[in-house]
Amino acid sequence: MTASRPLAIGLAGLGTVGVGVLRLIAAHGDLIAARAGRPLTVTAVSARDRTRDRGVDLSGVAWEDDPMALAARDDVDVVVELMGGTGDPAAGLVRAALEAGKPVVTANKALMAEKGGPLAALAAERGVPLAFEAAIAGGIPIVKTVREGLAGNRIEAVRGILNGTCNYMLTDMRETGRSFDTILAEAQALGYAEADPSFDVDGIDAAHKLALLAAMAFNQTVDFDDVHIEGIRTVSPDDIAYAEELGYRIKLLGIAERVGEGASLRVHPCLVPADSALAAVEGVFNAVVAQADFADAIMTVGRGAGAGPTASAVVADLIDVARGASVPVFGTREAGTRPLAAQPMAEHAGAYYLRVRVQDRPGVIADLAAIMRDETISIESLLQRGRSETQAVPVVIVTHKTKEAAIQRAISAISRLPAVVEPPALIRIEAAE
Amino acid sequence: MTASRPLAIGLAGLGTVGVGVLRLIAAHGDLIAARAGRPLTVTAVSARDRTRDRGVDLSGVAWEDDPMALAARDDVDVVVELMGGTGDPAAGLVRAALEAGKPVVTANKALMAEKGGPLAALAAERGVPLAFEAAIAGGIPIVKTVREGLAGNRIEAVRGILNGTCNYMLTDMRETGRSFDTILAEAQALGYAEADPSFDVDGIDAAHKLALLAAMAFNQTVDFDDVHIEGIRTVSPDDIAYAEELGYRIKLLGIAERVGEGASLRVHPCLVPADSALAAVEGVFNAVVAQADFADAIMTVGRGAGAGPTASAVVADLIDVARGASVPVFGTREAGTRPLAAQPMAEHAGAYYLRVRVQDRPGVIADLAAIMRDETISIESLLQRGRSETQAVPVVIVTHKTKEAAIQRAISAISRLPAVVEPPALIRIEAAE
Repeated sequence: MTASRPLAIGLAGLGTVGVGVLRLIAAHGDLIAARAGRPLTVTAVSARDRTRDRGVDLSGVAWEDDPMALAARDDVDVVVELMGGTGDPAAGLVRAALEAGKPVVTANKALMAEKGGPLAALAAERGVPLAFEAAIAGGIPIVKTVREGLAGNRIEAVRGILNGTCNYMLTDMRETGRSFDTILAEAQALGYAEADPSFDVDGIDAAHKLALLAAMAFNQTVDFDDVHIEGIRTVSPDDIAYAEELGYRIKLLGIAERVGEGASLRVHPCLVPADSALAAVEGVFNAVVAQADFADAIMTVGRGAGAGPTASAVVADLIDVARGASVPVFGTREAGTRPLAAQPMAEHAGAYYLRVRVQDRPGVIADLAAIMRDETISIESLLQRGRSETQAVPVVIVTHKTKEAAIQRAISAISRLPAVVEPPALIRIEAAE
Repeated sequence: MTASRPLAIGLAGLGTVGVGVLRLIAAHGDLIAARAGRPLTVTAVSARDRTRDRGVDLSGVAWEDDPMALAARDDVDVVVELMGGTGDPAAGLVRAALEAGKPVVTANKALMAEKGGPLAALAAERGVPLAFEAAIAGGIPIVKTVREGLAGNRIEAVRGILNGTCNYMLTDMRETGRSFDTILAEAQALGYAEADPSFDVDGIDAAHKLALLAAMAFNQTVDFDDVHIEGIRTVSPDDIAYAEELGYRIKLLGIAERVGEGASLRVHPCLVPADSALAAVEGVFNAVVAQADFADAIMTVGRGAGAGPTASAVVADLIDVARGASVPVFGTREAGTRPLAAQPMAEHAGAYYLRVRVQDRPGVIADLAAIMRDETISIESLLQRGRSETQAVPVVIVTHKTKEAAIQRAISAISRLPAVVEPPALIRIEAAE
């Protein structure tokens, strides 16, 4: 097999993942050649700083200061884009490579989630693969699972723990009772969280992955602005403790589920049953559950980030390219130009957890109950915790299934009650797998 | 896309799975055509009884009394073999189709596990796919995960709950305390277990799947006789209760792990830590954990049997064929002719759980301890349960890591002690994910 012509790679971006890919290819050259039917060779690279020592041997590899040049090189068969970002040079490079009829492998979830439709259409038009296994859940082969493994199914829903930083923080909060801010500061000091953590903790990273999962599951293009996004900043140790008492754990989930002809697309903290499979996924791990009509639920769990797992996904895509495999980006040729109708969040229906801090005076519970009644929201349980004549005390309300619009109106009304000292905390309840 | 020429299927075997495949293709014709780039059409079928009403419309589909004829038909592009069995007609049909240059999709784990090497070599020689996603763990796309998703990795081990019947029975035993025989009788009455349950409960079915997983993980051909196989008949409610007390659950696992240049290949009941991910997989579900060097551990959980999940896997393979994808059967072109060296079970090293029924006389514990000492087996814990002057009482011993040969010699010696009333029960302990 090694007599076959190597697949020549032009690699843009030599950060953690880029170096991981170089290391993997160097470590497993023979193994990869045997599996792919031909060797993988990196012929050219591009990164911002040529002088930096990255601990990998780049002798014999051409250097381009301008990543765009990789798409034009005759000695590059496939472009690997690991620079990130939704603008140029990443977007321009991907487009240029596809225009030149070259397959592209990318780990760029933001680019694919926000501009994936036109890129998918371009890839379909040119008949070349645009592969992005590394963009979702790191080492977990979830693109393969959803787009190929479940290709015979109508997929009803995809739910997942899609951000390892958030899951690590929520796990730590539950185990130690410490606050979000304390754990974030520690995670930043240890390098587990970015200096600007917003991308992770505000749910944007998870939303990018969710948008891609939805596009593949439903074979349609997702408008990223349609994804309802809430992060974990507002989750308090109290919420985690009450959730546990009620038989739940709090997870940041990305959820895409069919509703009518469209889908509900949302990322937010959820109460999931403590004995569910997703509740058991702790720490930095990611997990995705695809609900398919013939296969039923398929759950995959693994490391969602890190140099090794992400490089594994990039190289899997490269081996597919070397083998000549080509699957439409979002599952069908037409998906890139078929928009998915998203359900407005106000129309979401589900059960809710509310935590309200109130001054402990007679009648306050009656006021809360009256507001819920007026919105036709049925209460499953209501717990008042502690008693105090001077300090506010928490009241925890769990509702039966109701409409988001109703619960939001109820929250507004509750916030206006004189005994309520701060806006109520709301967490949605998911009957997850 | 529907303008493309349909992929014409010749389907042999119209049992539960075959009918499931027909139903799936009928239900999702448009969806499949969009994803596959062309429609799937069943043009010819073969089964034993033409007159039986299977509840599916076979009008316009050619009938062959002899399945072998499917391979020769001009209007068949791909043969789907769902008859089962390692002999003819299944083996002959698969061979004939490959010889004729036609792709084959099969759910036949026994055939692939026992005769897969030569068939893989034939498929490689003819350059046609021989796909078997449905042969392992039903709806879980584990072939895709191991052979494609993790293709960049050296795979160190694969462990799994591979037989839903056994897992269902072990779960029931733990939850109800009922015996193996009672639950088996009930499962047979309800149709969950076969009239001849040996294939399932004696571990043969799991061993077939394990052999296939090992072949893909290590890109070598497994001699099925090399797989060490023990089933769950000897697991008693007492063992399950003691395991729980010790912090474990009992699962029938298939395990393939690298040892030196070869691998340990075994199916047997295991004590796995109660808080491990595999312990949480209960009931009829299957789960596979692949340990890969770059991606780390990837676990997939889903339904391992049933018409829907198995049909889902068959159709996923058919869509791959329609898309033109072709991956070597066991991961590399050469795998079909590269034998895997299996470690003899006597050389296995691990920790053990032993349950010994003894007459409760002074000195018996000392005798047991002396035997373990003589075999240089280190005891982690030893529990004597109950006291009785007239009846035998159980002693449970958990060892530190030792050699299988040593523990087997110890068991022989223990069995010869006058106070020991029956041969000790042995269950291996796995530090599973």
